[in-house]
Amino acid sequence: MFTAVSRIDTPAPFFGGNRLVARRAASYTTGRRVVQVHAVTNVSRNPNMGKLKAGYLFPEINRIKNAHLEKKPDAAIISLGIGDTTEPIPAPIIDGMISSVSGLGTPAGYAKYGGYGPGEGQAELREKIASRFYPGGEVSADEIFVSDGSKCDISRLQMLFGPNRNVAVQDPSYPAYVDSSVMNGHATSFDASTKQYGNITYLSCNSNNNFFPNLAHANDSEIIFFCSPNNPTGAAATREQLTDLVAHAKENGSIIIYDAAYASYIENPDCPKSIFEIPGADECAIETCSFSKYAGFTGLRLGWTVVPENLKFADGFSVKADWNRLMNTTFNGASNVAQAGGLACLSDEGWNAMTELVGFYKENASILKRTFEDMGYTTYGGTNAPYVWVSFDGQDSWEVFTEILEKCDIVVTPGSGFGPAGDGFIRASAFGHRDSILEATERLKKAFTK
Amino acid sequence: MFTAVSRIDTPAPFFGGNRLVARRAASYTTGRRVVQVHAVTNVSRNPNMGKLKAGYLFPEINRIKNAHLEKKPDAAIISLGIGDTTEPIPAPIIDGMISSVSGLGTPAGYAKYGGYGPGEGQAELREKIASRFYPGGEVSADEIFVSDGSKCDISRLQMLFGPNRNVAVQDPSYPAYVDSSVMNGHATSFDASTKQYGNITYLSCNSNNNFFPNLAHANDSEIIFFCSPNNPTGAAATREQLTDLVAHAKENGSIIIYDAAYASYIENPDCPKSIFEIPGADECAIETCSFSKYAGFTGLRLGWTVVPENLKFADGFSVKADWNRLMNTTFNGASNVAQAGGLACLSDEGWNAMTELVGFYKENASILKRTFEDMGYTTYGGTNAPYVWVSFDGQDSWEVFTEILEKCDIVVTPGSGFGPAGDGFIRASAFGHRDSILEATERLKKAFTK
Repeated sequence: MFTAVSRIDTPAPFFGGNRLVARRAASYTTGRRVVQVHAVTNVSRNPNMGKLKAGYLFPEINRIKNAHLEKKPDAAIISLGIGDTTEPIPAPIIDGMISSVSGLGTPAGYAKYGGYGPGEGQAELREKIASRFYPGGEVSADEIFVSDGSKCDISRLQMLFGPNRNVAVQDPSYPAYVDSSVMNGHATSFDASTKQYGNITYLSCNSNNNFFPNLAHANDSEIIFFCSPNNPTGAAATREQLTDLVAHAKENGSIIIYDAAYASYIENPDCPKSIFEIPGADECAIETCSFSKYAGFTGLRLGWTVVPENLKFADGFSVKADWNRLMNTTFNGASNVAQAGGLACLSDEGWNAMTELVGFYKENASILKRTFEDMGYTTYGGTNAPYVWVSFDGQDSWEVFTEILEKCDIVVTPGSGFGPAGDGFIRASAFGHRDSILEATERLKKAFTK
Repeated sequence: MFTAVSRIDTPAPFFGGNRLVARRAASYTTGRRVVQVHAVTNVSRNPNMGKLKAGYLFPEINRIKNAHLEKKPDAAIISLGIGDTTEPIPAPIIDGMISSVSGLGTPAGYAKYGGYGPGEGQAELREKIASRFYPGGEVSADEIFVSDGSKCDISRLQMLFGPNRNVAVQDPSYPAYVDSSVMNGHATSFDASTKQYGNITYLSCNSNNNFFPNLAHANDSEIIFFCSPNNPTGAAATREQLTDLVAHAKENGSIIIYDAAYASYIENPDCPKSIFEIPGADECAIETCSFSKYAGFTGLRLGWTVVPENLKFADGFSVKADWNRLMNTTFNGASNVAQAGGLACLSDEGWNAMTELVGFYKENASILKRTFEDMGYTTYGGTNAPYVWVSFDGQDSWEVFTEILEKCDIVVTPGSGFGPAGDGFIRASAFGHRDSILEATERLKKAFTK
């Protein structure tokens, strides 16, 4: 074996070809040094991975934050960045999980829930999700597939559809839609001038269109990612808008992947909490959802995806049947303890505690929204969503991000991280302790009041 | 919306084409009935999903078992089928998890482990995995990516490499390698006569070659799946065999995906517990591993994958860098409670308890092996692995499976479920309560002694 070489001046020469050929470690000379080169394999890099630019948004932000901390080691950083829950999990839910864990130490408890569970989730949990979140009977338990979270399901959905699809996303939107689309081969390369990947349709959502896109741009899209309440803008789509969306999908034969991860934050009765409240959505939509932002389950990992019985591919084959097959091949069920936690969330006590927790973060959102407005900024979101979308009048959003970090020791998320139409904005997340949120508003007011 | 139609006599007509076209629900006549047809979407089914035959092995077995139970509702079924752990999780590991769950209900505990963890796993756990499982320093903590299990990582590895790869698998082997390869577009269609998918290289492992394949057949393979101790044959590869495997991969520039999920069952000192004990493996191998079969974590979901720093694609790009990017985009970390459980497994007390648990299942394996041999059957495996591979002298293995189920109310796994070279064998799993194992041996002796 060779000693690692941390940095080489010029690319190492290697022998390529379409067929596998014998490969040897080599040494070569750069300047005055003889550099020992690790043998490379003859496996080409997946070109779709090569198309992805920079890091995934949040690790990238973390990197910049850590660099700031190196310069200013005693900075008391407040994060309004990644939407990461901060409050302890309420007692009735903790109790449910403790009793599940204790059970796993006993023969009876282990026999019930210890081994491999059904790939699609425990029957009792699926029933409870159906009755709690779809009280109108729009969704039945066997259309619910329990998972380790929406982000994971989104990339499994990409596997389901396979490469080279026409995909549309809201712009701005949660980066996982675009990144997983690129990884899965739907996109051509990134265009530095438009800041878009080729062959992905970006549906601009902005204050001029009330954050609901012109769907005509998606006429050719096989798959439309749609998130409501939207991450990052906080916009919750109305019943009328979603009716248009469903009509559009049915008219064009598209499938909507509807991300409802923040649905419990909706308070406006005109905004449905599920796409399946819209008649016909069961023939054109899949819905992903999550316990992460409802009960502080970001680290526990529990979500679900609804694939309706009535959703069919063009040849009439059941999408749900393929999804079931895929889940059984690529996944082995959500953690049994997380599922016990989910079940505890859906008891009356758990449900009330969860509602209270959501209310707490909503109050944070309202404090942040009011602060920015008092400071003279135009804001969106923050009422039906845990995110406040703040306009910085067209300023480069990574510059605004850096300025806020440097002046206030506050991490926000630059709007352009969610797509080119997000430039000029920052997203402030309401996930934080109340005292941090209040301290953040003080620092912001001091440094950024117009 | 239309009323669901459970069964239609003829395929529904639909309008297709290369471009998306307007789609409408339709009605048509079959016999005397007018059938209301659900609107299908215009999204074509992923042809790779269409290539997969039947169900995934274990759900398929479950279906047959349930049919048996319908005929014979009071059958006291014993499962020697799926490798699913049955014994409670040992106390020191339960205690670790209870203290983690309790912590999530407190501000301090939640601040430490409550929110999103690092996508690659908690630093402390990665360190402990490195020192416990790779005590020779073969693997460093930052090459370890903690996950929700090997099966899930295998399909994420497929995403990493992308479609259309030349893949080789041991025959027989764990079905997820082939199924995920088909789903990912490496294979052409299934050939009913050879019982193989086209374009996948099946490396026959049988008693004639001592269960180690002729690697010359894999000269063109970019990716070689290799499992040791093997599931289902129980064969553990020797140091010499693995040295050949690594030499072969380096010679041909292949990447080995080495599944070490049963490594802790190895007792033969000539059989390495990790591919990274072989010099040079860090330049040609990825290793997947799991807590499932060590500590009864099948339902908790915790595993890890080692991607070495020195592993490079043909262009010199780091495989680990792409894996890190992929994990951050498609995964959000293993459940924090499962990670706390993993950490508890690696304390001295936890390690001893885990070793004892592995010993218990190994004793089961030894009982099963002895029984079949006393009955006059030739067996393999069962000493360095929790699986006993029993020869039924060329009989169709689904027939043997059905006969054992009908005569003994015992579920085993038909060998051909693991690949065509598995026909003529059944796999008996040692995961069971001791009294079930003993009862199973009595039933088998009565019905099947030669």
